[in-house]
Amino acid sequence: MSKEIPYKIYLEENELPKQWYNVRADMKKKPAPLLNPATCKPITPEELGHVFCDELVKQELDETTPYIDIPEEILSFYKMYRPSPLVRAYCLEKALDTPAKIYYKFEGNNTSGSHKLNSAIAQAYYAKKQGLKGVTTETGAGQWGTALSMACSYFGLDCKVYMVKVSYEQKPFRREVMRVYGASVTPSPSMDTEIGKKINAEHPGTTGSLGCAISEAVEVAVKNPGYRYVLGSVLNQVLLHQSVIGLETKAALDKYNIKPDVIIGCAGGGSNLGGLVSPFIGEMLRGEADYEIIAVEPASCPSFTRGVFAYDFADTGMVCPLAKMYTLGSDFIPSANHAGGLRYHGMSPVLSQLYADGYMKAVSVEQTKVFEAAEQFARVEGILPAPESSHAIRVAIDEALKCKETGEEKTIVFGLTGTGYFDMVAYEKFHDGKMDDYIPTDEELEQFRARLPKID
Amino acid sequence: MSKEIPYKIYLEENELPKQWYNVRADMKKKPAPLLNPATCKPITPEELGHVFCDELVKQELDETTPYIDIPEEILSFYKMYRPSPLVRAYCLEKALDTPAKIYYKFEGNNTSGSHKLNSAIAQAYYAKKQGLKGVTTETGAGQWGTALSMACSYFGLDCKVYMVKVSYEQKPFRREVMRVYGASVTPSPSMDTEIGKKINAEHPGTTGSLGCAISEAVEVAVKNPGYRYVLGSVLNQVLLHQSVIGLETKAALDKYNIKPDVIIGCAGGGSNLGGLVSPFIGEMLRGEADYEIIAVEPASCPSFTRGVFAYDFADTGMVCPLAKMYTLGSDFIPSANHAGGLRYHGMSPVLSQLYADGYMKAVSVEQTKVFEAAEQFARVEGILPAPESSHAIRVAIDEALKCKETGEEKTIVFGLTGTGYFDMVAYEKFHDGKMDDYIPTDEELEQFRARLPKID
Repeated sequence: MSKEIPYKIYLEENELPKQWYNVRADMKKKPAPLLNPATCKPITPEELGHVFCDELVKQELDETTPYIDIPEEILSFYKMYRPSPLVRAYCLEKALDTPAKIYYKFEGNNTSGSHKLNSAIAQAYYAKKQGLKGVTTETGAGQWGTALSMACSYFGLDCKVYMVKVSYEQKPFRREVMRVYGASVTPSPSMDTEIGKKINAEHPGTTGSLGCAISEAVEVAVKNPGYRYVLGSVLNQVLLHQSVIGLETKAALDKYNIKPDVIIGCAGGGSNLGGLVSPFIGEMLRGEADYEIIAVEPASCPSFTRGVFAYDFADTGMVCPLAKMYTLGSDFIPSANHAGGLRYHGMSPVLSQLYADGYMKAVSVEQTKVFEAAEQFARVEGILPAPESSHAIRVAIDEALKCKETGEEKTIVFGLTGTGYFDMVAYEKFHDGKMDDYIPTDEELEQFRARLPKID
Repeated sequence: MSKEIPYKIYLEENELPKQWYNVRADMKKKPAPLLNPATCKPITPEELGHVFCDELVKQELDETTPYIDIPEEILSFYKMYRPSPLVRAYCLEKALDTPAKIYYKFEGNNTSGSHKLNSAIAQAYYAKKQGLKGVTTETGAGQWGTALSMACSYFGLDCKVYMVKVSYEQKPFRREVMRVYGASVTPSPSMDTEIGKKINAEHPGTTGSLGCAISEAVEVAVKNPGYRYVLGSVLNQVLLHQSVIGLETKAALDKYNIKPDVIIGCAGGGSNLGGLVSPFIGEMLRGEADYEIIAVEPASCPSFTRGVFAYDFADTGMVCPLAKMYTLGSDFIPSANHAGGLRYHGMSPVLSQLYADGYMKAVSVEQTKVFEAAEQFARVEGILPAPESSHAIRVAIDEALKCKETGEEKTIVFGLTGTGYFDMVAYEKFHDGKMDDYIPTDEELEQFRARLPKID
């Protein structure tokens, strides 16, 4: 006896998750510890406390507590834009003429335009609770910076954003949204920091990179009393906060007795993918269920599929802790024609370990194929997807087409992380036939790999 | 015994309206008939059938049927993005320290970014059902054009959009979104039409106007077999389709036994205001309830507050039917510094009659005050509002502050019609102190008024 599945499954407010899920608690093989870049020894909470605020240090290092209470203040904020809908893609299924059932968890219905707000509000809350003045961060495509600006505005915290210079110049509207929320936005590399000055001197005219912007933001946080650094992906704490995506997805599926076969997420640093899949992987780790989990990354920045699993620096300036992760090398930058986010050289240590242990597979896709999927999706499902999210759409469509061949009625769930309203320059290139697919050669990747730190 | 009010009231799919509400059926004094511009006599269905598709002609002229079934195909599309939430603005109330209870009906959670999609999908559906090849339209700020592109893409109809040239140039991203959905977008005045050529010859270098773009779109529809013209506001049919906003709002309020005291909507051509308030005005017309209804318009385009109630042309080329409405004159164009939409010279004939009969009041607001309200709202409620919607926010805040003075616990409902993601140029001007408030002088308005057609 199955209830009719509505187009959109919304949970009631009282069905919202009240705890985050910490997948590390269920992992038999834990992620390797973060290392202090100066000593190459596991970093201590005290050392990490110079960078992150205290409660977040605890969350970053907690490998044993499976569920962590979401504070009341954060729950209140979540209620302003959550639950996000789990949408049955009836129109896409029809257009593809597939027997597969496709669902997507849509995280774009908030002004930051993506799931990033889920962790931004948590990080801002703990900073406020600790009595800090403000936080610093980097942003590339701009979703994280926007999310953090909104969160800081809500709690009355100062917010200093270092924005990769090329994005700062090409995306003035993203910058302007951050200003609406009162953030200061500085193009990176800037002349405000030692590392920025050094990079500008060594690479005159550089348009910046995520790794460089991270270094600048960390430097400013460490040097200014009352400030801490926050990061929108990669970190364990971020995956923890983002688990709200997967918990809601699972609650919505359970409500209608739906069991997914395939779960698909795009993967840059892993914030969305980790958040979406961790409750499901938790079931796998506990031997309660089995799913096919697929990480989708750009062919131009293929850390899972072509990187190595090794200790590496998180940032260009090598001021952040070292993490063991799938990485392309900390000075890897995707080719200039790469559109949108998913451009970080590494991958969440938690997801890296799970991938190494066989709990998920990964595929890489070329960007013109991604934009084709994006447009096909937009025309039938209405939503204009972000380029990042469209990586997941591409593979969801491919999987659904495989079902059409085989006749299998698989249930496919994918994460639609955000909207593409600030990515129209990329869409324009796609429409005008000016988008191409640059894939790094093995030789190029080897150059970056050769510079990885030598740590066992 | 009252239930606790959640942050967002979502109706279940089975609670969605299945019929539109036609407020004309309850009006004792009906709106004056549309006139044929050639004869100045009431236009016949046959004449109107050259411009609009048949079912929409019927809806345009139907003054007696109170409820009209929403076709199944449109209901299915509505389910992809409706119901829209009715949000309790707890955070705004707290920031204002007001005893007032504030709710907003948020129509921005779809890719068109506004309520315009509610009518676009209906108009596209009827065109498709009649076997037409495509439709033509005009767009100013771009919300309507985007919505229509999405709707046409869904039904496989061709869509030709004439976009006011200044917007076409200043808003390339809006244009690009329309291209995602397969629409052709032409800057207006163009050299494709007789009226476009004439206007370009008479006003070399003109950046266009809504009235001119309407004339071009109508000309193309009338000259191309298989095409009809569609319009996103002003018309009776549009108010009918948009009644889904008000019906959902009323259903959500009723579900929690909430009785609003004040209902506020921004007013350009009247599509949102009419849709939001018509079910409530219906109750007033039937003597069942009483509400304070407030229309908010820009001080730079004040058709209700400073226009005259008279027959006027709907477009610059004078090819459309004449309508009796509050108007500033069909060649009125707001000053160049006016940001966003709400720039039409006239007002829905239905709303005009209701206003003349005392069922609503109107206020005009200056744009810097509007953007101040927009930013205040964004910072506490998260959503970045469209400039149009922010007119309603301004007055909702003002009303809530009055309640603070008097201690009254009024319940205020306003329409948050859309998001401002494509309006960041205007926000930038506001942040940089480059926005000012031009209000037309009485002498200027008198010049336009003097050219109104002389019809009793």
